Order: sequence, then structure tokens, then C-alpha cells
Amino acid sequence: MLEELKKKVYEANEMLVEYGLVTFTWGNVSEITPDRKYIVIKPSGVDYKTMKPEDMVVTDMDGNIVEGDLKPSSDLPTHLVIYRNFKNAGGVVHTHSTMAVAYAQARRDIIPLGTTHADTFYGNIPCTRLMTPEEIGGHYEKETGNVIVEEFDRRGINPDEIPGVIVANHGPFTWGKDGKDAVEHSVILEEVAKMNYYAETLNQNIEPMQKELLDKHYLRKHGANAYYGQKK
Amino acid sequence: MLEELKKKVYEANEMLVEYGLVTFTWGNVSEITPDRKYIVIKPSGVDYKTMKPEDMVVTDMDGNIVEGDLKPSSDLPTHLVIYRNFKNAGGVVHTHSTMAVAYAQARRDIIPLGTTHADTFYGNIPCTRLMTPEEIGGHYEKETGNVIVEEFDRRGINPDEIPGVIVANHGPFTWGKDGKDAVEHSVILEEVAKMNYYAETLNQNIEPMQKELLDKHYLRKHGANAYYGQKK
Amino acid sequence: MLEELKKKVYEANEMLVEYGLVTFTWGNVSEITPDRKYIVIKPSGVDYKTMKPEDMVVTDMDGNIVEGDLKPSSDLPTHLVIYRNFKNAGGVVHTHSTMAVAYAQARRDIIPLGTTHADTFYGNIPCTRLMTPEEIGGHYEKETGNVIVEEFDRRGINPDEIPGVIVANHGPFTWGKDGKDAVEHSVILEEVAKMNYYAETLNQNIEPMQKELLDKHYLRKHGANAYYGQKK
Amino acid sequence: MLEELKKKVYEANEMLVEYGLVTFTWGNVSEITPDRKYIVIKPSGVDYKTMKPEDMVVTDMDGNIVEGDLKPSSDLPTHLVIYRNFKNAGGVVHTHSTMAVAYAQARRDIIPLGTTHADTFYGNIPCTRLMTPEEIGGHYEKETGNVIVEEFDRRGINPDEIPGVIVANHGPFTWGKDGKDAVEHSVILEEVAKMNYYAETLNQNIEPMQKELLDKHYLRKHGANAYYGQKK
Repeated sequence: MLEELKKKVYEANEMLVEYGLVTFTWGNVSEITPDRKYIVIKPSGVDYKTMKPEDMVVTDMDGNIVEGDLKPSSDLPTHLVIYRNFKNAGGVVHTHSTMAVAYAQARRDIIPLGTTHADTFYGNIPCTRLMTPEEIGGHYEKETGNVIVEEFDRRGINPDEIPGVIVANHGPFTWGKDGKDAVEHSVILEEVAKMNYYAETLNQNIEPMQKELLDKHYLRKHGANAYYGQKK
Repeated sequence: MLEELKKKVYEANEMLVEYGLVTFTWGNVSEITPDRKYIVIKPSGVDYKTMKPEDMVVTDMDGNIVEGDLKPSSDLPTHLVIYRNFKNAGGVVHTHSTMAVAYAQARRDIIPLGTTHADTFYGNIPCTRLMTPEEIGGHYEKETGNVIVEEFDRRGINPDEIPGVIVANHGPFTWGKDGKDAVEHSVILEEVAKMNYYAETLNQNIEPMQKELLDKHYLRKHGANAYYGQKK
Repeated sequence: MLEELKKKVYEANEMLVEYGLVTFTWGNVSEITPDRKYIVIKPSGVDYKTMKPEDMVVTDMDGNIVEGDLKPSSDLPTHLVIYRNFKNAGGVVHTHSTMAVAYAQARRDIIPLGTTHADTFYGNIPCTRLMTPEEIGGHYEKETGNVIVEEFDRRGINPDEIPGVIVANHGPFTWGKDGKDAVEHSVILEEVAKMNYYAETLNQNIEPMQKELLDKHYLRKHGANAYYGQKK
Repeated sequence: MLEELKKKVYEANEMLVEYGLVTFTWGNVSEITPDRKYIVIKPSGVDYKTMKPEDMVVTDMDGNIVEGDLKPSSDLPTHLVIYRNFKNAGGVVHTHSTMAVAYAQARRDIIPLGTTHADTFYGNIPCTRLMTPEEIGGHYEKETGNVIVEEFDRRGINPDEIPGVIVANHGPFTWGKDGKDAVEHSVILEEVAKMNYYAETLNQNIEPMQKELLDKHYLRKHGANAYYGQKK
């Protein structure tokens, strides 16, 4: 089943290699079916060089394997929580890309400093709170998802406008309308983290970009009045 | 019309990929016809991998499409203001190259610290002032061009001697005698930004290079007494 | 003799080039036979581009050449000390990878700041004490091994749980169940050093990750209750 | 004449591209004939992609062109001063490699912090004093050579033991037994500059490596008692 979608998810996973976001097997992409009943996700710990479309694992929304000979990515429960709570997320990505992880380790938001950020992320890319010992010792991967959702709820952030997060002392998760779109958000998040690192270490008294400029760039690419790119 | 020029502009755009200055579709190159009546520019939001010479868009100096099925780059109005005011600019480039953007986000000039800079840029590469809410809310891309021109006017900078600028919280624009020349200036601006970042974070009390050395290197490559390279 | 193992060690050495860990000939991989009687190691100062499997040198545990026309890596005595003391080390690697060397030069441990670290290293990757003039002037390469072992003993570190070290003012050594595994640990050590450099320069008051999170990530991949990856 | 040497110098110049030390035409390699009567050097401002062995320029020790249709590198007079004063220099290289230039712009020596440095450079890689307005306004390229030689004389440095220098606000020059050897020294100088940058920004109170360790590593590769590499 879902052979077409497996191929798509396979290709989105391979994009992580093309864009230099993963070392070894450290990353995974999933996509949800349009009826939001099934997930197709990368198998756990499998090499990107030898992986094939048919290695993708299909699960239901409780994480039960529906098809596939391999175990799904151990981060599956985090993906499931994101899909369940962020209703427009059609694809989810997790990586350990270098500079995004640096922000996770420094426990800092990626603040909007320029139009590269504003073209995709409509405000701070939040860094989550630390997880409690109970959360870590319990259903850890599921609780990782819960902490992400909690952070967006607590701050009143719309996940459609900020399609990514930094999990403290861990790394980034992003989402998008499908797997490929979510991968693009991971590429941009890493690039923006890089730009911010250099800007913040260059100017210790740096200030966020103006709200008007953030609005302008986000809204010229997103929403009803967008005018960037070609007409679809 | 202008098939030869479309090919040239296409190739200059592809140079951005070759030199690692762009991610996805973030960058654009244009060139003006010798009679300064028409602009050939990259279409908006089109992938560099699938783009073809015939996708280039031809416009007049008011930005009206004269030929082409695609919308021109949304930065076209900025290019037009640069062409209109910087009379020797034959090509214009905009990118979001990493370290130049870091300087834009830190709102700092790229000061002349070494001969790499002095070989191409005869003094500070200026960072513009912040745009006003009115400018951002109005004809934003055109006002971006106006802010660039204003910065050069206010500081009395000759755009032939400093063929590039950093737009605050945004990124670099460069120009040159044609599209290819302008791309080379973008490559150099990014490289100089990198050298300055490392030098400035290494030595907090850094000083600009000597005026005499700046003069020497700029003038051995530019103007009547240049002696670098082969005779043309 | 040991043609199969020579090929394996050759391939592990070439991985150093593939993963960008070596410049010129600066790096070496060795592997020990299952009976722990012989070592197969890269020859000294030989170019990775022209090196062949049959160039690998076989020595006994005293470093005497048993087979091979070339001299073994000058770091062989360090490898021997590691094999003799770390009983589960099946392969050993030494490189001068950039960021690990920076930590060696800064004489700083690589502390656990995130899950990338915790997935492989169960605590600080220690930086050794300085060697004494006597150690440097004596059997230097052997004493380098002794200083490594002493550091693990003194701190009570289990080398199976921390498969790598930073030798002060020198660089990293790693080990693993075979040469390839030890190379992977070198790749990870370099990547973690990079993440830590950016995190530590971004946040001067950085704190180590929570002990619970370190435990969770290390133990989900290692030991009796591991559940990451596919069943072997 | 000297067709063999032209090919060697051409290949050494192309190594600069292979090792990522040059952008555009920013770099040049020369080699001197064994009788120290002629120099073969890269032509000025010629593209590495289209350059051919026969484009190399032959000059005498006064810089007069003896063979070749193109102008020699504008840095030729600096090379000549180095050959005239450093009697064992058989090849000379100049680049604008990123991190070496950063040290030139920060006006700082590259101090010995680790064994990577000590394997090739037996102490500080000196940064020259600033040139005087008279030197800059006079025979600038020749005076650049003079300032290098003066720095080695004043500090009592043996150029055979420190085969490289940082010219303040400019960039690195290196030398070696031939062009290829000098290029390898440029690669190492850039790599060491990188390691030092990261170490120095990580630890503001960094100290040089121990003299004993510097001696040990330099002398195990150089001089009568060297034992690194294969017997020649």
C-alpha cells in the first residue's frame, strides 16, 4: 500500500543528505496520508546510501506498524504528537543539523534578525523548556512531542506560521505541507541559525528586526496577499 | 528578442549556485541593455536546477514585462532604482549569502581590513539605515533601492568604486559592468565579510587598514595607472 | 597473512578522507586480531590517494613488524597501549580533525551538551593532563598512550562508555569494536566538538545537559535495554 | 625552455584550487631553477580553469621576462626578494586563504598551540610590521619582500624552520624546497590558522604549547634524527 507515498518520503529523506543536514543516520522524515490515518516514516538506524523506497515503514496513528519489515524511526511518537496537534502538518522532519543543535545546546530561541528568517518564520523559532525527569523517564519520545506542543500553546504561536522548533539540548523539528516542504523548512532553519550565530557573536547588543519588516516579508510570501513567486 | 543577453543573464544566475551564494531560489541577477532601455532578469521563485535561458524576463525601465511568460524577480524594482541612479551599473545581483547577511543583521559596515577588500572595494561597504515603517509599507522593493542610493549620496560614496552594499536586516546587493562582473563582486563581498568576521572576533580592538595601502591596492587594479592582470 | 583484515583497515583509513577528517597523511587507523596478538595499521606518511590494502603493516603486540615493506604509523606505540589497557577496543583511530584539535589546544573537555553527544559518549570526553618533559623526551608515543589510560583511570571513566579522548595540545584518539566503528566515533567526536564550540561561544554561561537526558539517550542505544535501530 | 619546470609550476598552481586556497585568480606559485638563475611563475590575473602549462612565465632574477607571452604575477618582486634572501627556498606561494588573511587583518602571529603546527613550523609564524607610506608608495611588491626578510632577521628566525609568514593586512606567503612543497606549507598554515582561531576564541587565556612538545614534534619530522614517514 501507499507505494507512491513511500517513494515521496524516501526522496524527502534523501534530500537531508543532499542539503548536508545529516551525519550517518541522524535524521528522519515522515508524511501523513491525506485522510490523516497513516504515517509513512524512515526506518530506524538505516543507512541513507543503501536505503530503498520499500524500506519505508507505514504505521497507524497509534504507531502500530501496518506495513514494513523494519522498525520505524525511534522518533515516531514525537512525529505522531505533532501530526495530532498541528492539523496542517502534512510532513515532519527531525535532524541534528550543526547550528540548530548549537542553539538547542545554548537553550536559545532563534530570533528574527533578517528577511531570510521572515520569508519563512513569522517570529521567534522557540526553544522548548527542559523536560522533567518524569517526562524523560516515561514515554520520552511522546513527551518530546508534548513539550513542543505545550511551548506553542503557552506562547500562543501558530504552528502554520512558525513551522519549526528547537528542542532544548536536543535539536530541531520542522513540519510543512508535505515531507519535502518540511525538509525545506529544516534547511532554512539551519541556514537562519548560522546567520544568527555569526550576527550575534559579531554584535553583542543585537536587536530583533523591525516588526514592520517581519510582517512585510512574511506576508509577501504567505497568505491572501502574497505576491512572491509564480502564480500556481 | 535579446536571446544572447538572456543566455548571459541565465549563466550569471547559475554562477550564484556554482559559488555557493544561494540556497533554493534566494538570489537574482539582472543585466541592462547597452541603450539602458531594457532589463533582463531572473524570474521569481524559479528553481536554478530547472531554469532555462528562455525563462529570463525582459522588462522596460518602468518594470513592465516586454517579453516572458513568467513574473520577474520580486526584487526588480530595487534593481531598477540602482540602474537609474548608478549610471555605470550594467548588471545587478542580490543574494542572501551567509556572512554578508550576518553583517546586515548586525547592522555593520564591512570595513577595509586588508588587501583582498582593497583590490575591489575602495573603502567601507556601507550598511544602510533602517527603513521607515512608511517605506516598508509603501513600494517596499523600490524604497529598498532608494535607501541604497540615499546611503551612497549621504556618505558621498562613488558607486563605481564601492560596487556593493549591505541592506540592514536584509542582505547584499552588488553591481558591475555586466551580470557576471556583478556576481564576482557578490563572491568577493561574501569572502571579505568572512575574513572580517574572523578578524573582528579575534581582535576586538581591530583597526582599519592604512589609507596608503587601500589606495595602493585599489589603484593598482583600477583606473588609469592599473598594472594588475594582462593588457586588454 | 591477514589479507581480509588489511582490506578492512585500508577501507577504514579511506573513510577518514571521505568524512573530511584528514589533511595529507595526518591520521591513522589500526585494528587488532580477535586473538589480540597482531595489529594491522596504516604505514607512516603514505598518501591516501595512492595507498593500497597491501601497504598495511602487520605488527605484534610489541610493535615488531611481522609483515609489510613499509614502516608502521609513528603513532603505533600509542595504539598498542590503548589495545593493551582497553580490552574491548578492537580498532583505534588518530586524527588531527579541526575542531577536536581546537579543544586539545584550548585544553578543554568536550562536555555533554546535547543528545548527539549522549547517543555515543556517556559523559565528558576528557582532555588529558600535559605530558611531563620526561615523558615527551622518553618513549613519547608510548607515553601518550599511558597519559590517556591514566586519565581514564584517575577519573574512573569506562573506556567502553567514552570511546574517545582529547590529548592536550595534540588531538583526538578514538576506539571502537573495529576500525570502522572507531572511525565513526572520530566523526562523531568532531561533530560534537563543532556543536559545542558554537554553543559555548554563543552562551558563555552554558550548562551541561541534565543527567537524566544523558542516561536516556545513551541507554536507548547501548546496553541491555537499547531499542534504537534494527534488531541484529 | 624549462618545459618540465613549467609543467611542475602549473601543477603546483592548480593544487591551490584543489585545496580550496584560492578564489578567482588570487594566488600564485613560482619555482626557481636549481642554478638559481631563473624563476617560473604564474601569469598575472589568469583564470585557473583555462590556464595551461605553456602560460607560465620565465624571468631572470631581476624580473625581466625571458620567455612567455603573458605578464608575470604582480607579486613577482616579492618572490624574488624571498629567493634572494632565503637560500633554501626552491618554491614560493602567495594566497589570500580565508583564515590566514583573518590573522593578517587582526595583525597577530600564529602561535604554536599544538602538534599540527609543530610538525611543520618550529615556532611562531610571524606577522610582519606595518609597511611605511614610503614603502607602500615606492616599489611596493619588492618592499613587501623586504619587510618579510626584515621580520625574520629582526626576530632571528630561520626561514628553513618557519617556512611561512603573514604580511600584515594582506595575507600569507610560504616557501619550500619546490613549488609543491611550498603549496603544502600554505595548506598547513591555513589549517593551523583555523585551529588557532577556534582555540583562541574558545579559551581567552590560552597558552602556547610546551617548548619540549614543540621540539619533539618538529624534530621527529625534520633534521638528522627524524623518524616520521618512510626512509627516502
